[in-house]
Amino acid sequence: MARLTEDAKGVYVIAVTPFTDDGALDLASIDSMVDFYEGAGVTGLTVLGQLGEAPKLTAEESRTVVERVLKRLDGRLPVVVGVSAPGLAPMSELAEAVMDQGAAGVMVAPPWTVKTDDQAFAFYQSVGEALGNTPFVLQDYPLTTNVTIAPKVIERIVNEVPNCVMLKHEDWPGLSKISALRAASDKGTMRRISILCGNGGLFLPEEMGRGADGAMTGFCYPEMMVGVVDAYAAGNPDRAHAIFDAYLPLARYEQQQGIGLASRKYVLAKRGVIKSATLRKPGAKLSALDIADVERLLARQTIRLKEIGA
Amino acid sequence: MARLTEDAKGVYVIAVTPFTDDGALDLASIDSMVDFYEGAGVTGLTVLGQLGEAPKLTAEESRTVVERVLKRLDGRLPVVVGVSAPGLAPMSELAEAVMDQGAAGVMVAPPWTVKTDDQAFAFYQSVGEALGNTPFVLQDYPLTTNVTIAPKVIERIVNEVPNCVMLKHEDWPGLSKISALRAASDKGTMRRISILCGNGGLFLPEEMGRGADGAMTGFCYPEMMVGVVDAYAAGNPDRAHAIFDAYLPLARYEQQQGIGLASRKYVLAKRGVIKSATLRKPGAKLSALDIADVERLLARQTIRLKEIGA
Amino acid sequence: MARLTEDAKGVYVIAVTPFTDDGALDLASIDSMVDFYEGAGVTGLTVLGQLGEAPKLTAEESRTVVERVLKRLDGRLPVVVGVSAPGLAPMSELAEAVMDQGAAGVMVAPPWTVKTDDQAFAFYQSVGEALGNTPFVLQDYPLTTNVTIAPKVIERIVNEVPNCVMLKHEDWPGLSKISALRAASDKGTMRRISILCGNGGLFLPEEMGRGADGAMTGFCYPEMMVGVVDAYAAGNPDRAHAIFDAYLPLARYEQQQGIGLASRKYVLAKRGVIKSATLRKPGAKLSALDIADVERLLARQTIRLKEIGA
Amino acid sequence: MARLTEDAKGVYVIAVTPFTDDGALDLASIDSMVDFYEGAGVTGLTVLGQLGEAPKLTAEESRTVVERVLKRLDGRLPVVVGVSAPGLAPMSELAEAVMDQGAAGVMVAPPWTVKTDDQAFAFYQSVGEALGNTPFVLQDYPLTTNVTIAPKVIERIVNEVPNCVMLKHEDWPGLSKISALRAASDKGTMRRISILCGNGGLFLPEEMGRGADGAMTGFCYPEMMVGVVDAYAAGNPDRAHAIFDAYLPLARYEQQQGIGLASRKYVLAKRGVIKSATLRKPGAKLSALDIADVERLLARQTIRLKEIGA
Repeated sequence: MARLTEDAKGVYVIAVTPFTDDGALDLASIDSMVDFYEGAGVTGLTVLGQLGEAPKLTAEESRTVVERVLKRLDGRLPVVVGVSAPGLAPMSELAEAVMDQGAAGVMVAPPWTVKTDDQAFAFYQSVGEALGNTPFVLQDYPLTTNVTIAPKVIERIVNEVPNCVMLKHEDWPGLSKISALRAASDKGTMRRISILCGNGGLFLPEEMGRGADGAMTGFCYPEMMVGVVDAYAAGNPDRAHAIFDAYLPLARYEQQQGIGLASRKYVLAKRGVIKSATLRKPGAKLSALDIADVERLLARQTIRLKEIGA
Repeated sequence: MARLTEDAKGVYVIAVTPFTDDGALDLASIDSMVDFYEGAGVTGLTVLGQLGEAPKLTAEESRTVVERVLKRLDGRLPVVVGVSAPGLAPMSELAEAVMDQGAAGVMVAPPWTVKTDDQAFAFYQSVGEALGNTPFVLQDYPLTTNVTIAPKVIERIVNEVPNCVMLKHEDWPGLSKISALRAASDKGTMRRISILCGNGGLFLPEEMGRGADGAMTGFCYPEMMVGVVDAYAAGNPDRAHAIFDAYLPLARYEQQQGIGLASRKYVLAKRGVIKSATLRKPGAKLSALDIADVERLLARQTIRLKEIGA
Repeated sequence: MARLTEDAKGVYVIAVTPFTDDGALDLASIDSMVDFYEGAGVTGLTVLGQLGEAPKLTAEESRTVVERVLKRLDGRLPVVVGVSAPGLAPMSELAEAVMDQGAAGVMVAPPWTVKTDDQAFAFYQSVGEALGNTPFVLQDYPLTTNVTIAPKVIERIVNEVPNCVMLKHEDWPGLSKISALRAASDKGTMRRISILCGNGGLFLPEEMGRGADGAMTGFCYPEMMVGVVDAYAAGNPDRAHAIFDAYLPLARYEQQQGIGLASRKYVLAKRGVIKSATLRKPGAKLSALDIADVERLLARQTIRLKEIGA
Repeated sequence: MARLTEDAKGVYVIAVTPFTDDGALDLASIDSMVDFYEGAGVTGLTVLGQLGEAPKLTAEESRTVVERVLKRLDGRLPVVVGVSAPGLAPMSELAEAVMDQGAAGVMVAPPWTVKTDDQAFAFYQSVGEALGNTPFVLQDYPLTTNVTIAPKVIERIVNEVPNCVMLKHEDWPGLSKISALRAASDKGTMRRISILCGNGGLFLPEEMGRGADGAMTGFCYPEMMVGVVDAYAAGNPDRAHAIFDAYLPLARYEQQQGIGLASRKYVLAKRGVIKSATLRKPGAKLSALDIADVERLLARQTIRLKEIGA
């Protein structure tokens, strides 16, 4: 399988993990989900992320998920696997296993113990060493990790840690961070890496305008991310905004903590992508009122998409 | 001046604090801003909030702001004043001062030391006692205060602390909280209080659908909040959503930390509401790229509003 | 192997994990360490705790550690295993595995997502269900977990979750919590469970005075915990304080984050309990000045222990 | 009054704020407290700190406290005043007021919004500018502020902000930080400033060994801090440790959050330093069991002090 490189672009969708109604892994739905994402035009998949309910899986289930996704894709699209762990040893253990299985790269977020610039750098330096020649994604997600990494620290990491090939950009607010990193590459002080954006795609058109290469995030309509990224790539920011605006009311709803993932799975199940909308315990459940909210948003979205011919 | 009661509804706009380019209080702009808000159809004003840059004011400046706002309004609209403080004594001191000046009520957020249900209740019980007969708003904003207050704790506070007349609802996600509190009032186990919603209005139509009485938040187009609340009150949720959707792309941009307030003031200055977009130090400043983002959003918003006849 | 019950008392020492100088598991040192703890008079061992560097172990290494400890003890002392995990499935998986190996019980801390009283209760209720008939220890450690559990919530958990048999008491400050829980048991409103105290033993004599059953914590001289607990059990609090005071300067030094564990392992290596003082990366290392501090404290401690005949 | 300089050394005791039994300011007790501290041999006083219950005072009460302390001292000892505030304007306002009253300098902690090295530097740079020629103390207290400032950032602040003359060292653990800062001064890369240590004095002998100039902290027996600092200054670290060890059991007890300050005031009242042990609401109250703990510690301390001839 091709390895992840600095040239990656497009949409790496954060895959959900499908469960049956009683909380068991639903392997058949993994297959249909992979097919759906591929059909929607994504460039790659990211599995075992936070919103893939990875922490709720047993070690064996995690391996099963990765294996099933890779087998279904059969090398047609690259797969990134989240391997964040509290220590270097368990992180390396998982990374080695999934790379052997055929993953294209891994993703690592910093532990909450990182406080200063030098600590952030030292952490990713030791990650780079521990991973050997496995390419990795620096996951920069302060809202969850509670670790803020300044642009100049990312610059230092990128320059001194050669297997850091991508930034999953999820600082918030973060538009100026993309601008600063791209300016550093333009000046020649920083190797140009791939920047894919998260945060549910809520700032995707503006992020593309700042020089991002695409998105790495969820949302029940990957068509939104694909549409925005493609329109930008085609030099048509107005089209990108039009597509974005049509999906924004639902995307916003899906960004709520807990209930948001339940909403995402509800829509995916309704679309026939997965069989059951169930979240594994502990997990949120939509109330009748929540479902009414989502249905109204879906109905309005359908009309709006028709209006703009998307 | 009439005091704040459980019957309050509509839009209490969180006022910005206008400064001159060099960071001094701009009293003339306070007048024009008050006129603008009144003209936009808001029901009340909230001053000295976090997004009013209250913590950056000296004690004397705070008094000046409240005085100027009250004088300009001359009793036509009620004013709520944020009085959160680390101790009961400074909180009461400020509350007494502003009520004497003519405020309608005060707003109090919990300190981060509150951890358990009983501690949250005890805090608001002592606030209620310390404030005497001054009506107050319980500000429930976990994202900033780091204090989560369960619906049943709010129920207990409302039932045992008679001068708690309003909830500034800003839990996130929080739709189910509104539903739970309204259900409690419907069942008769909780006094019905006013619920006005925050979070920049990003969930306002859904919040109205759950039984909220309106909004207490900022956003450079208070017309959005007024339009959504009025359409809901008129039994027209579809119209509410249409208005909301038109403003959502900009409202979302304005919800970014730091840069969001700079964006709000930029638009207010552009609209002639205040003279300068300056934030007092320490405060964010828009870059040329940020301004280009905002201008694009404004242009698209204008077109969309025309399309829906708003 | 006998299972952990509400009657547990004495000292369950939190075992370190011995590594060789280059960071590999040192199995021979596990044996010598187990012998040392047993010889020091502890009642039980707790492994795979935070201060056992558990998060730095691979899944296979974790199993190896538990297996080796259990084999060496050969049933002479009970072993508690930390199994906290972000989801119920991986927690149950590990718990089942170690109980099959012969552990006496498991220990579970709450995730940081727990905010309200009801959420804390619901979490431990689902833990109790997921663990079936495996007895478990409720680890109450707000400083690290950021979750505060009020005494009345613990009371509710104990009453409704039968396999919760022990509290690892590590709230801070927490003396009044022990008093409240013992008062509840005395009144008959709460099943009496075992309370073993943590926090490096820094409040152990006072905790025993409030009704604790012993200690579950580290410290390079388990003789301190054993001595204090035994003296209290023998009705001699003054003796308990004398022993405690003699060890306190070093115990205090060992409570520093990061450097404290390095200090603990330094002394254990110096005492011949383990072969190398190495912490696995990422981990602190003592400087020459740190070592001078520890050596001075050891020298003073030796003199003081002689003075009090301990 | 002489201004605070880099040469400050000795013990700046964090003063409590005495209240009457019903929570009013007790001005007579301020006088007796000031006399007591002076008689105990402290070098200076620090008022309006967190543990002086400053946040619970009204603005007018704060001014009254500072005025009373300064008047009683009549210039015999320097006074440092805590002026941390969420904005530069209210901070400068308070600093100017107390310097006019005769304070020797002010103390400033960083706001929680500071995350990166550059942000920490920028904050103190703007503090330095806003304070003009008023000397200030950098309060480095991550446990409360949640802001970690690396030694090299302190070095940069000290070098570029001339009115930063002292570090209130309260990082935890922090011994290596003192060593790093002193090494920088020895190498000539950093102006040598005063370093006074906090954390209730729990690491004072070791901190003096690393090159600290003294202590800035509370504890109901300032004799401990004075004794340790003097013994170290006289080249007698063993004596310093002997004094420290005698007070450590009580000092440790006093470091508990909430209950610790109640314990400090209990002992000060018992010693006749202040009239009432009352904490202003919201504040902890000692239970009968807490008081028994403290009394036992006091009794043991008296014996031990006699043994070592202190």
